[in-house]
Amino acid sequence: MQLTGKNLIGLIDTAEGAHTFTGVDATLGTELPTTFYEATDAEVDRAVVLADRAFATYRRKSGAQKADFLEKIADEIMALGDALLERCHQETALPLGRLQGERGRTCGQLRLFAELLREGSWVEARIDTALPDRQPLPRPDLRQMLIPLGPVAVFGASNFPLAFSVAGGDTASALAAGCSVVVKAHPAHPGTSEMVGRAIRKAAEATGMPEGVFSLVHGGIAPGTKLVGHPLIKAVGFTGSFRGGKALYDAAVRRPEPIPVYAEMGSTNPVFVLPGALKERGAALAQGLAQSVTLGVGQFCTNPGVVVVEQSDEAEAFLKTTGEQLANVAPTPMLTSGLLQAYHKGIEGLKKMEGVAVMQANVADGATLAPAHWLRASVQTALRHPELTEEVFGPSSVGLVAERKEELYEFARQLHGHLTATLHATEADLAEYRDLVALLEQKVGRLIVNSFPTGVEVSHAMNHGGPYPATTDVRTTSVGTQAIKRFVRPLCYQGFPSAALPEALQDANPLNLWRLVNGEWSKEAI
Amino acid sequence: MQLTGKNLIGLIDTAEGAHTFTGVDATLGTELPTTFYEATDAEVDRAVVLADRAFATYRRKSGAQKADFLEKIADEIMALGDALLERCHQETALPLGRLQGERGRTCGQLRLFAELLREGSWVEARIDTALPDRQPLPRPDLRQMLIPLGPVAVFGASNFPLAFSVAGGDTASALAAGCSVVVKAHPAHPGTSEMVGRAIRKAAEATGMPEGVFSLVHGGIAPGTKLVGHPLIKAVGFTGSFRGGKALYDAAVRRPEPIPVYAEMGSTNPVFVLPGALKERGAALAQGLAQSVTLGVGQFCTNPGVVVVEQSDEAEAFLKTTGEQLANVAPTPMLTSGLLQAYHKGIEGLKKMEGVAVMQANVADGATLAPAHWLRASVQTALRHPELTEEVFGPSSVGLVAERKEELYEFARQLHGHLTATLHATEADLAEYRDLVALLEQKVGRLIVNSFPTGVEVSHAMNHGGPYPATTDVRTTSVGTQAIKRFVRPLCYQGFPSAALPEALQDANPLNLWRLVNGEWSKEAI
Repeated sequence: MQLTGKNLIGLIDTAEGAHTFTGVDATLGTELPTTFYEATDAEVDRAVVLADRAFATYRRKSGAQKADFLEKIADEIMALGDALLERCHQETALPLGRLQGERGRTCGQLRLFAELLREGSWVEARIDTALPDRQPLPRPDLRQMLIPLGPVAVFGASNFPLAFSVAGGDTASALAAGCSVVVKAHPAHPGTSEMVGRAIRKAAEATGMPEGVFSLVHGGIAPGTKLVGHPLIKAVGFTGSFRGGKALYDAAVRRPEPIPVYAEMGSTNPVFVLPGALKERGAALAQGLAQSVTLGVGQFCTNPGVVVVEQSDEAEAFLKTTGEQLANVAPTPMLTSGLLQAYHKGIEGLKKMEGVAVMQANVADGATLAPAHWLRASVQTALRHPELTEEVFGPSSVGLVAERKEELYEFARQLHGHLTATLHATEADLAEYRDLVALLEQKVGRLIVNSFPTGVEVSHAMNHGGPYPATTDVRTTSVGTQAIKRFVRPLCYQGFPSAALPEALQDANPLNLWRLVNGEWSKEAI
Repeated sequence: MQLTGKNLIGLIDTAEGAHTFTGVDATLGTELPTTFYEATDAEVDRAVVLADRAFATYRRKSGAQKADFLEKIADEIMALGDALLERCHQETALPLGRLQGERGRTCGQLRLFAELLREGSWVEARIDTALPDRQPLPRPDLRQMLIPLGPVAVFGASNFPLAFSVAGGDTASALAAGCSVVVKAHPAHPGTSEMVGRAIRKAAEATGMPEGVFSLVHGGIAPGTKLVGHPLIKAVGFTGSFRGGKALYDAAVRRPEPIPVYAEMGSTNPVFVLPGALKERGAALAQGLAQSVTLGVGQFCTNPGVVVVEQSDEAEAFLKTTGEQLANVAPTPMLTSGLLQAYHKGIEGLKKMEGVAVMQANVADGATLAPAHWLRASVQTALRHPELTEEVFGPSSVGLVAERKEELYEFARQLHGHLTATLHATEADLAEYRDLVALLEQKVGRLIVNSFPTGVEVSHAMNHGGPYPATTDVRTTSVGTQAIKRFVRPLCYQGFPSAALPEALQDANPLNLWRLVNGEWSKEAI
């Protein structure tokens, strides 16, 4: 595919803006050929107006029609072949094997939502039949289902250039819900974004979806701000930094009509290695931790940034082995030079803090490479300096040593919201530390026993979210089928004749859905 | 019960503040004896700290234990007997018959949530079992359920002194979810609030709930602001004016940790009387409309404030008959003198508008009485002056006449969010106006055919909510069992041994819940 650098506004390619940029070879740090055009306000406006017009049609497509569309997107992404992976590798320095896996995840996610749509019960149909003879007043016939919110703005993330980007989880779940989508591409992988954007456009045309059901705009803060402020946008999906996500949230809640913002803003993902587990398998845990910390050059929002142990000989051995394991990891390039600079700055900040010791500092021989780091401090130090446990985006982690068990609890109590917390524990540990589990339940979106937080399964039971500041909306997940709930709301029909209702609510249950009928789940007709 | 006028902070009665007020006899406009003490910042803080402490225990109570508590609250409210209804009638001027019905609704609501808790499936347990042999990576065991958010601030509403007040829908759903609650009583019915607050406290003690699971504070803006700003409060429920609700929303989203605000802020609830229905039963519809407009002195958030017809002889007859029917309605007192003043001001504003004619203006002979009004204008006028269709809280409505069918569509298109929209229609009307239905689906939380919007059933399928500015969160309902969803969020457990999981997620399914197991709904054990 020949890249054009243009914005994809409905079916039209446009390049009206004066601000341009290029992709960057993340391994070499050099500019890539195509010039990309940041979208102007007028281009963003056209994309949103088209999305709004498309929404009126798209929201009424059947589950099967939307499923065809999503599956066709997956097919078109696969049809891009190696060219997509190669461009993506150039722009992100992520290894081809990883990108192949991420492409599989992206397409698998689209197909899982298609499956959800074909089955259909996700609309949560609820029917309370009329009770005309009830005293003192009759009960009317009431039927409720979930309907889509409207056009959604999606902000691509840099660290998952496929799975959390143009055709990533937010786009897939919003389209599945019946919302039209305008994506602002992440400027760190504009070529990848254009390729995937064209695949979505092609799929929309092939499956008869209305023009504007999907548009793609390029650029940074300016088009992003315009998008979130547009009165026809009804919700926002974002994955990225706290600063970026919070700015979008602040803009959205100050609009004349406030709208929901689902910003997933990362997290330090505390890991507790409990005494029984340390004794039983400390060396293996050190190896697993080193792998998890450096997975994807530490550029996972579930990267384990803090590891807590109680002081003991086994703990010392674990801390030491983790450093040795990290020393074996060859430095690789980060996604952008900006992220690498921020990583170095973050590490320097940690190193300067009183009470922080460096256990392992790898050396990088190359301007784009990020060397892994392993630091240590006492839990007491971390309690006095909460900034010690803030996220440093990259392949580093801080080991914290508690003098007493009670310090673990104190540390857990003062945690703010995180995406995950992890316990490495024997069954006896879990019983002994059950109050720690209870504390952590209130701090995170996912609690893990005996594995590492990196790796977020796309499934029905996954929750990828968590209390603020991990996200701006603890009530939802950005990964898994439940993500569809972000972009819907209930609508109740009262007293409608069956034929005038959406199929999901009609007496005969023509879609064969699970429905809550007078308080009982059933697939029966009324 | 002897009223004390004190705040109920956990199990302690306190009266530390310098600001005091009394209840007012709403019929006579005179002060009632007991002095009430506005809560100080310190009292609010103590209530919230107790609520937070109680939450850690309360959230882990079983469904059956919470159900016992809610049912006991209903019992204790009934045990207050006629004294509650009489005090409530004094403070609100609402007729005893209506208050008896509202008490029934309030207790019925508590019992319905108890039933939901005993059945238990509302936690939406989801289980994806491990796939240890999956390639390229194994799938871990993932289990998700809904857990409560934390301490909730509830603001009592003036217009439903029982059903949307101290033990109203927000309190019932928050307690059902497992959240502790601090209620700020509405100052228009402080005695009623104290009585119901004491009933809740008694029920909490009788069923072994932790101190602080419920507290009640009196006052106006000062304690309300302190409450919403308190870092330990995790969500807010409110029913009332746009000004009040929007102020709470703005305060909550600007906190260092933003929290959800569920403010239900009223609505004009447009009613479309379509030509076939007008022909078939215009006179009956006029009678029904007049009743709906004056129900509860027009103090329902679902009051039909705008009625749209297409011009015809039948439409003229309908408009005229509605006026005649309203003329028969004797004026009754509003809840407060402030509301009555605002009502008069609203009516004067409407009357002064160009193109607005008065069809019926009742006369009130008494300082607290609100006379019904029925105005008319053209749809064209309403399109030019959107303020014509803003809510005037009280027994009034505006009839709008469209010159052409297309004007109905135009009017529907420019509507902002409302709680409800209503169509009076024959089956032929519904078929002919199906695009109007499609437009209205995007504007409201509940769409009604052939009845009136006043009257909100408490059931599984009800949705009492709607797009902004009807509420600050279109994704939820304040009435019905789904209201429990406001106060919960998902938590995912990964890799936990069954015994370390909450009962809802354990292999054996000891609570006999409907669970989504590997994508299929089932009550089977794993």
